[in-house]
Amino acid sequence: MALIVQKYGGTSVGTIERIKAVADRIIASREKGNQLVVVLSAMSGETNRLIGLASEITDRPSAREMDVLVSTGEQVTIALLSMALMSKGVPAKSYTGTQIKMLTDDAHSKARILDIQCEQMKQDLAEGTVIVVAGFQGVDEKGNITTLGRGGSDTTAVAMAAALKADECQIYTDVDGVYTTDPRVEPKARKLDRITFEEMLEMASLGSKVLQIRSVEFAGKYNVPLRVLSSFEEGEGVGTLITTEDNEMEQAVISGIAFNRDEAQLTISGVPDKPGVASDILGSITEANIEIDMIVQNVGDDGTTDFTFTVHRNDYKAALESLTKTGDVLGARKVYGSDSIVKLSLVGVGMRSHAGIASTMFAALAKEGINILMISTSEIKISVVVDEKYLELGVRTLHSAFGLETDGNLK
Amino acid sequence: MALIVQKYGGTSVGTIERIKAVADRIIASREKGNQLVVVLSAMSGETNRLIGLASEITDRPSAREMDVLVSTGEQVTIALLSMALMSKGVPAKSYTGTQIKMLTDDAHSKARILDIQCEQMKQDLAEGTVIVVAGFQGVDEKGNITTLGRGGSDTTAVAMAAALKADECQIYTDVDGVYTTDPRVEPKARKLDRITFEEMLEMASLGSKVLQIRSVEFAGKYNVPLRVLSSFEEGEGVGTLITTEDNEMEQAVISGIAFNRDEAQLTISGVPDKPGVASDILGSITEANIEIDMIVQNVGDDGTTDFTFTVHRNDYKAALESLTKTGDVLGARKVYGSDSIVKLSLVGVGMRSHAGIASTMFAALAKEGINILMISTSEIKISVVVDEKYLELGVRTLHSAFGLETDGNLK
Repeated sequence: MALIVQKYGGTSVGTIERIKAVADRIIASREKGNQLVVVLSAMSGETNRLIGLASEITDRPSAREMDVLVSTGEQVTIALLSMALMSKGVPAKSYTGTQIKMLTDDAHSKARILDIQCEQMKQDLAEGTVIVVAGFQGVDEKGNITTLGRGGSDTTAVAMAAALKADECQIYTDVDGVYTTDPRVEPKARKLDRITFEEMLEMASLGSKVLQIRSVEFAGKYNVPLRVLSSFEEGEGVGTLITTEDNEMEQAVISGIAFNRDEAQLTISGVPDKPGVASDILGSITEANIEIDMIVQNVGDDGTTDFTFTVHRNDYKAALESLTKTGDVLGARKVYGSDSIVKLSLVGVGMRSHAGIASTMFAALAKEGINILMISTSEIKISVVVDEKYLELGVRTLHSAFGLETDGNLK
Repeated sequence: MALIVQKYGGTSVGTIERIKAVADRIIASREKGNQLVVVLSAMSGETNRLIGLASEITDRPSAREMDVLVSTGEQVTIALLSMALMSKGVPAKSYTGTQIKMLTDDAHSKARILDIQCEQMKQDLAEGTVIVVAGFQGVDEKGNITTLGRGGSDTTAVAMAAALKADECQIYTDVDGVYTTDPRVEPKARKLDRITFEEMLEMASLGSKVLQIRSVEFAGKYNVPLRVLSSFEEGEGVGTLITTEDNEMEQAVISGIAFNRDEAQLTISGVPDKPGVASDILGSITEANIEIDMIVQNVGDDGTTDFTFTVHRNDYKAALESLTKTGDVLGARKVYGSDSIVKLSLVGVGMRSHAGIASTMFAALAKEGINILMISTSEIKISVVVDEKYLELGVRTLHSAFGLETDGNLK
């Protein structure tokens, strides 16, 4: 008998028919002898509807009241699913964040989970009851309703799995797993059976929006096996299991190709190279509340240095303005940039033990005439910035160069 | 400085514009120096929408989960109104039934209030914060969400007023007070400035659906002055004050004319008159789960008796069937009835000390050729059953006979 936490997202419970289908899926798992805790999001569109009501009242709603408002979305779905289960003869019980005592700090709309009280739930589970929990919401120590921020239901599910020491946390969504890259860009993309927490974090933060990053961090920290599955697939899929690195198994060198269309690149060149120049340049950007992603610095042979960095595309104009001012102050030769670039990243824990990955990557891109504008590396990823017109070609070239369409890419 | 509890019903908070208007009304009262506790219903239509979702899932939803579901309606409005108040610079704080610890028994969908915890609220009030409470909902001692049943927000408001020892409980609704009768039937109907709890109970139970009966009982029991006002009226209305009988003031003999179209009348005649016959007859009806309203018995001079009683019109067929069987068993002469009758009632505490009311009533009806089918009296009301075709004529005749269109009807 296994204890499974299942989480269903907004599209999976978006209609009454879908909620009934979710009930059937839960019952099938229960009939195999599993104990089940189910975490739900609001019906798709509901959270936006509620936010829309608030925005008709005021541009700057109270964060406390916003949490009172939007937390009703999940409360509706937990009641409906519990009814659906009971109408099929399966004992079920819904819990709001307050009822489950999902204790968080008081940072409304982005609260962090501190503790979960499990005694009552364990008793319910022992009696064969399916527990249906409102995702995304908690309660602070004063009894105020809090929310974990958008996508927080994934985090709720992982936290429940960690607290209850569940055997697996299954995240049901509208895709059937994690792919080597976005199938809309490379139709040959292949679903991965396994991926490590670290790889998933790199894939997620680079734009594969399957799971909320915090939930993956959380799962990694508490070593909760996480499985991404489709709630729309017929029968029982295996999805993708996200877990710790396993030395016993065959491990792919590269897990996938991530990409990000939302970046812009800025360069300040010919800056006199002296201590403190980096902080002068980047400080002015961060003071303008702009987050910097990649940073590269080259020192020239004329005693000057060039800085290149990337920011979110929405911040491009403001960043260029700020950087131009800094350039004047520092006596830089030139300040320029582009908001028509993209970032491509190769992700894989196998990089740690395999040399030559970078040169294979650069050679493959060069062969297709794709000019690399910027390079940045970490232990398990290599990112390059290229002109956005090369996005699809670049992804497909790398996908093929590392044999990701087959299982050929093994140690 | 007075402490006022205000309650706004579903139509009063039915749109964002209406919620903003309610905020303005609250602020106006606060600027007069009042401390305010505001109890809200769900936006009109929302509770029905939620019930509709449940009915798509199952015909017999779990009562516990139904309460989890429908209680979200009020949670939405308290958040929105609090936001509206704060956006106008007025400190406000919402409370769900759970947060206010509105302790009830565990009778889901028809729970009774046992206790309210007031400490936190008193502190908020002292700080000048407007307290915005979700009506209709509570929490049982295990932390399950309960609801008080339809219209329960009135009861919440009265209970809050009683617990906080408020100076007045104001029920804002879509009518501007309690009338001498339904203005749709008698356009000369006059708004009452005052009415006693007892009279209001008779008026309400007889079909004037301004206030939930339980809330009036509650207000009478704890002596909470209750005022019915319109939330749609411009400026500040006085509405109708419902309070205890006041010997100091001029008191109308008759407060109003109530009527009820939902009744049907049944008669069993020529029943041998012996002990236990009443319980034989009425027992068979109540065994069929049919509620009996008026009961009249006459004893004839031939040693037999006639019974006439009224039931809800929906129960007419079942009651007639049951009574026919009883008639056969008891050897009754005849069993018959009619579902095209109505009940007209004269209500007024002044009846206690004034003779001749009944004869004035019967004479007025007789003058218009209205045949009385049945009479029943209590301390503060006289009810008659007449053919339904006489409803409008009967109401207008009595309204005029007792001078209700003017203030002429005084002691």
